[in-house]
Amino acid sequence: MLAKRLFSDKAVARGDYGRLEDKDLNVFEKICGSNNVLKDDLDPYNVDFMKWYKGKSQCVLTPESAEQISQLLKHCYERRLAVCPQAGNTGLVGGSVPVHDEVVISIKKLRNYYKLDPNSGILECDAGFVLQELDEKLAKDGFMMPIDLGAKGSCLIGGNIATNAGGVRLVRYGSLNANVLSLQVVLPDAQGTILNLGAPLRKDNADLKLQQLFIGSEGQLGLITKCAILVPPKPKSVQLAFLGTKSFADCCAVLRACKKMLGEILSSFELMDSESMRCVEENVLLESVLTSKPEFNLLIEVAGSSPEHDAEKMENFLTYCMDEGLATDGVMAQTGKESELFWKIRENASLALNFDGYVYKHDVSLPLDHFYELSEVIRDRLKGTKAKRIVTFGHLGDGNSHLNITAKDFNQEVYDKLYPFIYDWTAAHNGSISAEHGIGRLKRIYHHNLVNEKKQNINSEIKRVFDPRGILSPYKMID
Amino acid sequence: MLAKRLFSDKAVARGDYGRLEDKDLNVFEKICGSNNVLKDDLDPYNVDFMKWYKGKSQCVLTPESAEQISQLLKHCYERRLAVCPQAGNTGLVGGSVPVHDEVVISIKKLRNYYKLDPNSGILECDAGFVLQELDEKLAKDGFMMPIDLGAKGSCLIGGNIATNAGGVRLVRYGSLNANVLSLQVVLPDAQGTILNLGAPLRKDNADLKLQQLFIGSEGQLGLITKCAILVPPKPKSVQLAFLGTKSFADCCAVLRACKKMLGEILSSFELMDSESMRCVEENVLLESVLTSKPEFNLLIEVAGSSPEHDAEKMENFLTYCMDEGLATDGVMAQTGKESELFWKIRENASLALNFDGYVYKHDVSLPLDHFYELSEVIRDRLKGTKAKRIVTFGHLGDGNSHLNITAKDFNQEVYDKLYPFIYDWTAAHNGSISAEHGIGRLKRIYHHNLVNEKKQNINSEIKRVFDPRGILSPYKMID
Repeated sequence: MLAKRLFSDKAVARGDYGRLEDKDLNVFEKICGSNNVLKDDLDPYNVDFMKWYKGKSQCVLTPESAEQISQLLKHCYERRLAVCPQAGNTGLVGGSVPVHDEVVISIKKLRNYYKLDPNSGILECDAGFVLQELDEKLAKDGFMMPIDLGAKGSCLIGGNIATNAGGVRLVRYGSLNANVLSLQVVLPDAQGTILNLGAPLRKDNADLKLQQLFIGSEGQLGLITKCAILVPPKPKSVQLAFLGTKSFADCCAVLRACKKMLGEILSSFELMDSESMRCVEENVLLESVLTSKPEFNLLIEVAGSSPEHDAEKMENFLTYCMDEGLATDGVMAQTGKESELFWKIRENASLALNFDGYVYKHDVSLPLDHFYELSEVIRDRLKGTKAKRIVTFGHLGDGNSHLNITAKDFNQEVYDKLYPFIYDWTAAHNGSISAEHGIGRLKRIYHHNLVNEKKQNINSEIKRVFDPRGILSPYKMID
Repeated sequence: MLAKRLFSDKAVARGDYGRLEDKDLNVFEKICGSNNVLKDDLDPYNVDFMKWYKGKSQCVLTPESAEQISQLLKHCYERRLAVCPQAGNTGLVGGSVPVHDEVVISIKKLRNYYKLDPNSGILECDAGFVLQELDEKLAKDGFMMPIDLGAKGSCLIGGNIATNAGGVRLVRYGSLNANVLSLQVVLPDAQGTILNLGAPLRKDNADLKLQQLFIGSEGQLGLITKCAILVPPKPKSVQLAFLGTKSFADCCAVLRACKKMLGEILSSFELMDSESMRCVEENVLLESVLTSKPEFNLLIEVAGSSPEHDAEKMENFLTYCMDEGLATDGVMAQTGKESELFWKIRENASLALNFDGYVYKHDVSLPLDHFYELSEVIRDRLKGTKAKRIVTFGHLGDGNSHLNITAKDFNQEVYDKLYPFIYDWTAAHNGSISAEHGIGRLKRIYHHNLVNEKKQNINSEIKRVFDPRGILSPYKMID
């Protein structure tokens, strides 16, 4: 059964696309073999990770090469069959599942090519590798993936790129715009064009950087089949601290101090407010490592090439925070087990919410001046409603707030007080309505309200350049 | 007088654009005032930095706001007047000067807006600021620009972004794709559209990232008028070492060790081969700091938040390199004056060449396996010609080789042996014919030979989305 959706998303009417016929299935089977044309038990491909949406696709294709994808897309172009590209299907905005009867093309079987250049630290690989799998393969050669996120065990690198995934270490290693060097993409055009964009080189100004346009394009321009990514050396030392502060202003002061004193070794700066910590304690029975129950909790990770230097920097930093009264409490992880526990607490901030019943989830960016103000405005706004908890956690180092509201069940009053207010407020305070999850289906109407007509027209024209018949992932961000 | 150009660049015939008339000048004066419409002494705008090219523009506009630029471009669109956008005019590929009679629009007077958020480290500013000026302004608040290059005293940040400038610290802070968060651009369309792309936020997945497309678009899509850039904290400590090695393979081994042992504090990794050092010694009378005259010289800079830790890391690293026999010689700068001298030697690698007479300059990227192989192939190829020196220096940490050849005068035989061989070889070895200087006018024919037709068509279609009448910077990278 599907969970009630956050947004009243009257599904966009089906477009004037071709309808799948037996002859199409025959063509698909000829191209990629009958074992790669699935017609039954398609729920894992039709239903999104949050179980908010269920598409009606009758056919899932799992091609094994870019050449097969090229032929499939060429056929879909000719027949004007709508296509929904899919990677790990771990997205949180319904972007990776079909809306109507789009043919699903999964990239999960693109997982042969893997090549690391240990001199330059450049990894080239097929787009269907699981993020964690790549991280483990790289570890053997002393490297690591520059992104890390909750879904790492099942998300695919191609999907990460298509959605410009962020995660918990962006503050250190930067976005995928920083680290993706080249892409191979297949276009849904008359030729099923295979385009190689950019090169596995750190510096390359020999052409327009179209590969950058595909990062975060949510599968609406082409299918990503291969990539080259800059991967950092795996640090020798990783150290963690948990800090308590009495105000959000103090959290910002700690962040500023952190950037100065920990500078180049800072690898994560995460926030959990007291409500978030209480939720973890009550719902998943994990106890905070800070006994003082501070208003705000900060998880700070440093990673570097010298355990001694890093520990000394961290100690100096913690002493400074305590001496200056910026932190009221603080503890450093002394063992690997303690480090794991610190991260477990933070990672459970999201999972713990589900035990309350229904969760109104958000993912916004805000200038730090307004970061926690939104939480306070919402708390005020929801007074007297059936809202149970108003919880804020997130990647404070990146200005990325996951402000979530729980209730026993879906409640219309809470819903009406939240939307579109929360996105209008965010936009009015120079924030972004999607920090890292994207637009997909969930935020489509808000995107359309906030992005001006000229920009939307440009998006559509750009889409037309790559996808002339508009068959790729319709009913989502770009029309 | 113009210097003889490297490439036999038969200027592309003038396009079917409108011709400037008095009535146009009247309109321009109405829009931005007669003091911002220059008609005399236009050589500084018509001639490029290398003095290879001289355009024939009869009118240079220096508008003071994006709104003025919008009105100017609207008029140029209506009259189909070709336009050459110009920033600091420090480019090395003739991209910033007109070819025929394009109207030059300089962004140099866009220099009012400047705002730094010290919490997030995000700088917002007009596009006409000089790079070094921004760096000095930021230093007062403990921040720095993430790029640094030779032309910093005269290049403008808008031009840096339009050309995706690289420079000497990309190995640490990443490319402008990593650090530019948002752009304001003005389009040469019927409305003179002012577009705000992206937001001054670290994470923002709320729209297609069109701002990324303008980075390195060489002024062919629109004029950049404002930007938001992520700026790193200024390090407390900067330390330098000069190392000598006996082979290029050892240089690569030193780089690998460097990434492991200096990891997060490495901020520059520069190469000068023995020919390059000899040229500096002979032509500008700067003596190497290494008395042993090694085959290869490496300048390694680290920057961090603790002088003691950084020095200790650097000493351990140097000891390792000597003990393992990777380096045959090495010295650390002990004073600020010595550091300045180290950089002065490296910075003179380029300038010193000019004293030989004529320089065939290059800027290519290569996988490290082939980085120095090209230099050897060229040395072999030019045996018995009038070539004087074959010199390699560059940003080895980024795979960016500046392989330059000098001769007393321009020599046709040397020219014919070099072109198109050097670019074909680079492309055949998975390199890039332009690492950081761009395509502009100089490498236009090579770009056109190497980029396949489909990709060129896509470039043209993308250009048409923003520049429907093709008036912006014609005769350059994109047709």
